[in-house]
Amino acid sequence: MTQVHQGTPPRIGLPEVDARLAAFFAERTEQATRYGSEYQRLWTSAKSASDGGKRIRPGFVLSAFDAIGGPGAGIATTADAIDTAVAFELLHTAFLLHDDVIDGDTVRRGRPNVSGEFARDAVSRGVQPDRAALWGETAAILAGDLLLHAAASLVARLDIPSAARTALLDLLDHSIFVTAAGELSDVSFSVRLDEARLPDVLAMTERKTAAYSFAGPLAAGAILAGASGDVLAALGEYGRLLGIAFQLGDDLLGVFGREDATGKSIVSDLREGKETSLIAYARATSAWPRIQQHFGRSDLDHEAGRRLAADLEACGARAFVEGLVTEYADAAVAALAAPGLPAALSDELQAVARSCVGRIA
Amino acid sequence: MTQVHQGTPPRIGLPEVDARLAAFFAERTEQATRYGSEYQRLWTSAKSASDGGKRIRPGFVLSAFDAIGGPGAGIATTADAIDTAVAFELLHTAFLLHDDVIDGDTVRRGRPNVSGEFARDAVSRGVQPDRAALWGETAAILAGDLLLHAAASLVARLDIPSAARTALLDLLDHSIFVTAAGELSDVSFSVRLDEARLPDVLAMTERKTAAYSFAGPLAAGAILAGASGDVLAALGEYGRLLGIAFQLGDDLLGVFGREDATGKSIVSDLREGKETSLIAYARATSAWPRIQQHFGRSDLDHEAGRRLAADLEACGARAFVEGLVTEYADAAVAALAAPGLPAALSDELQAVARSCVGRIA
Repeated sequence: MTQVHQGTPPRIGLPEVDARLAAFFAERTEQATRYGSEYQRLWTSAKSASDGGKRIRPGFVLSAFDAIGGPGAGIATTADAIDTAVAFELLHTAFLLHDDVIDGDTVRRGRPNVSGEFARDAVSRGVQPDRAALWGETAAILAGDLLLHAAASLVARLDIPSAARTALLDLLDHSIFVTAAGELSDVSFSVRLDEARLPDVLAMTERKTAAYSFAGPLAAGAILAGASGDVLAALGEYGRLLGIAFQLGDDLLGVFGREDATGKSIVSDLREGKETSLIAYARATSAWPRIQQHFGRSDLDHEAGRRLAADLEACGARAFVEGLVTEYADAAVAALAAPGLPAALSDELQAVARSCVGRIA
Repeated sequence: MTQVHQGTPPRIGLPEVDARLAAFFAERTEQATRYGSEYQRLWTSAKSASDGGKRIRPGFVLSAFDAIGGPGAGIATTADAIDTAVAFELLHTAFLLHDDVIDGDTVRRGRPNVSGEFARDAVSRGVQPDRAALWGETAAILAGDLLLHAAASLVARLDIPSAARTALLDLLDHSIFVTAAGELSDVSFSVRLDEARLPDVLAMTERKTAAYSFAGPLAAGAILAGASGDVLAALGEYGRLLGIAFQLGDDLLGVFGREDATGKSIVSDLREGKETSLIAYARATSAWPRIQQHFGRSDLDHEAGRRLAADLEACGARAFVEGLVTEYADAAVAALAAPGLPAALSDELQAVARSCVGRIA
């Protein structure tokens, strides 16, 4: 799931989002104390999972809300928009938590995630490693469940006209439905049930990332500001296309990025055999037999990773995917040409699209 | 999580619950076809996970709703009550799905569960067993997420007065919050992080089962019928106590039950080292060193299981827990003596309490 590294929307209201998130976690952590220290720790750890995020999704909710009409549209207050922004952030954290369980990851953003923290603690208290790992997974599954539900509960409680609440619930239902489809696809590639051809990888990306991270939050903010159907459709299309562009950019940065900038080893995607757009392209070239020998090798070292990256570049995969990023970003910008879309929002979203291309340059 | 085997509430409206559930799954399965055959299978499999349940929770919602005032109270229609009943059933299935992932179970109600079905299919298509297991777990985690969200979405969409919807959302939030706390406790016992003393086992049971399976559905039906605070409190207390009684009964049936009646091997709880009330009691007796030698042994055969059961009986654990079931059921009945609780509902809930005691006799 994409991390947008730069060129994020203006931080209108993001401090309020952080404050609302902090209040949410503080309240739940306080309630959890009645259920024992482990449950309290679960909530502390869930908060850590949320901390350090770039608040991309809240930013999209608030940008769209503000630019299209804000509280002046008479549908929702700024507090309602912030709650909705928080709901998308909680949803994001819930997906990350369950994604990490599925991938067996115990580290996220450079520190132990919920699974990793719980497992480490259990080991330090004398629990055997396999049981400690189960304990960690349990904590992460439950934390994800709690945040997933909290997202829906926040939206359900908005004191807005019932048509707007229904539209938001439809959007949330759709976002979750589509993300689950994308996640299932992604794993079907990684367990080698389905072959990951390029159109499949792009469809998976659209479902797993673009829907809930880009299209959903923009449409949510627009609904709260009473946007027209045309504007909603334009934002949905922009979000869909730009979400794909960003994920393709992440595929590139995962192999060719500067580790000090991305905070991620350039070996990890290659070592875990991640089916990205680069791999899907390379598979159809004559370089594949050579690449295949090393791709997905759990003992791939940094030097071999560099050679594999060079092979991916030589076979044309890098240039091809860089071209795709530009195409998708251009198409996203073109989708913004809808009557009624405020110029300020259009300008801002064009800047986001440029940053998407710029970060891989 | 407790299965109530007999003496369930009258089936007022349960065919409508089943029809509503069937419509829900049919709609989602149809939508899923657009996202590929695996996703369609996920929804078919999620429906199977819901099929065959005894609809205990919907029964409680509808019994309370009907007896307290039904649609005549002017708050909710019968359709609203059915949606709420369906929400609790979906929540139940979601919890079962994630519980099975946590326990590593691939069978439920005598057939492969979502994990088991997906894993088996992957193996039949040539996927290696460890990857197939991961695929199965992924499907079950996602199916649980989807049903968990669907439960909240159904409640959020009820067209009822906002105070009633808020009360229902509070109840749902609380049910999920408490169940997660109970599940975490349960796993902390099974990985041997916490020692499972009797009060801890009872508290875990109350949280993991009684809250969302008994107290929650009864209170939900009552809210939709405009019940007074006294009636809500009485139903909550009854549900809390009876939920514990039923789980204690399950502990007994799991070891001393007739396998042809319970559909469950009497060895499985003992083999997996499940920390039940029986074990918590036995641990404090002089029989423990002998019991401990066999309890939790993965190679425990049927004959050794019988001997272990005999030891649990001889040390007094069986009689003690049977006594507890009666005490909790009696206390649940006593909680029904609230002004304003309709006699018909009180009679029905007393019958449920009697059946709880009767099934272990």
